[in-house]
Amino acid sequence: MRPKLVLFGDSITEGSFEESGWGASLANHFTRRADVILRGYSGYTTRFALKIIEKTMEGIGGDEKSPVTAVTVFFGANDAALPDRRHGLLHVPLAEYQKNLKSIYAYFKKIWPSAVVIFITPPPVDDEARIRLLPEDDTSGLPERTNEAAGEFAKACIAVAKECGSPVIDIWSKMQQVPDWEKSTLSDGLHLAALGNKVLFEEVLRELKAVGLSDETFPADAPPVESLL
Amino acid sequence: MRPKLVLFGDSITEGSFEESGWGASLANHFTRRADVILRGYSGYTTRFALKIIEKTMEGIGGDEKSPVTAVTVFFGANDAALPDRRHGLLHVPLAEYQKNLKSIYAYFKKIWPSAVVIFITPPPVDDEARIRLLPEDDTSGLPERTNEAAGEFAKACIAVAKECGSPVIDIWSKMQQVPDWEKSTLSDGLHLAALGNKVLFEEVLRELKAVGLSDETFPADAPPVESLL
Repeated sequence: MRPKLVLFGDSITEGSFEESGWGASLANHFTRRADVILRGYSGYTTRFALKIIEKTMEGIGGDEKSPVTAVTVFFGANDAALPDRRHGLLHVPLAEYQKNLKSIYAYFKKIWPSAVVIFITPPPVDDEARIRLLPEDDTSGLPERTNEAAGEFAKACIAVAKECGSPVIDIWSKMQQVPDWEKSTLSDGLHLAALGNKVLFEEVLRELKAVGLSDETFPADAPPVESLL
Repeated sequence: MRPKLVLFGDSITEGSFEESGWGASLANHFTRRADVILRGYSGYTTRFALKIIEKTMEGIGGDEKSPVTAVTVFFGANDAALPDRRHGLLHVPLAEYQKNLKSIYAYFKKIWPSAVVIFITPPPVDDEARIRLLPEDDTSGLPERTNEAAGEFAKACIAVAKECGSPVIDIWSKMQQVPDWEKSTLSDGLHLAALGNKVLFEEVLRELKAVGLSDETFPADAPPVESLL
């Protein structure tokens, strides 16, 4: 038996196999023990996630020999784009974000009843970096995302996780505990730098372990070479 | 339909999702298009690979919705360990190495008839680094692997690939074309440094493309967010 971990989310999941990425770190950590399956969709909100969830998950399988043991659900960074700013078309109202998260949870529990669904809140936003990185055609001087809005979505995500009885990683709070978090954990005020990836990787490991999933409980799929000599 | 790429090999495959790793680079390159499945076994030779191939591949599946489209077979670095040196127990005679590679090929063609099997030769060895890194209890002053032996296994691997009508990546030759290859492409005279990983990643991409598999031919599994707005 070789379990699967599925990573479902937006660009911060899609990019998780880039240099220092938290997804690649998970795959490396669980080498010989579990498969890490990447389902990341840049720019996607919970609203769009629901449109593609059936199609993008159907080939993953998840039978007895290779059950899906855990899924991370990591949306909100785009839902929280402010409605009256340049990425306003992405905005999803807070109540719909919560409803959508519950629908995503329900879908995973339907197709993989024994899987643990781990919610991840949106990460914090460095408002100043977002202003500094505005494109030339945006003369508003206003960030399209703010840390305050991300924080509201983070709280909403935590509430949904509690309601579902699911673990949740409050990466919005965790990352802000890192010294100089705006620059040390984020690459552009929104996406994760190497240190942000490391913080998230360790939090995912911790949550997996808390629900009984670790490199001690996943047996290796083949013996160490020393035992074959 | 979302294809799978399976990476089967020894420690240079097992470590391919470490920082800068060629496996993680493939997963990142084919994000939203294909799943990269890691089956790397540190210290393994072709002889040991045959003992575990059935068990380690059985959960991968490979049905119509998620066919295995390509497999890399990357063994030889341990088979080529010299018989009379400290890793001598790993040594596999050249003729058996070839026979084993053919058996691995036959197994993959049996379970996934439409998959392309891409052979990868063992990489070059920096004899001097291997001597420098001998443990204290080995006072022989002799490397346990040599570039000459690796080259013989590389030639043998190429011959098998030709016989099978399969593509082959001669990474033993390719890496030696890089300036200062001993230090620039290898981390310890045997395993790949960041540049060695990059060379291999690009060679795998090239071979996949040569058999019609690229990010142009694998369709994305979900539309770009812009088309949903």
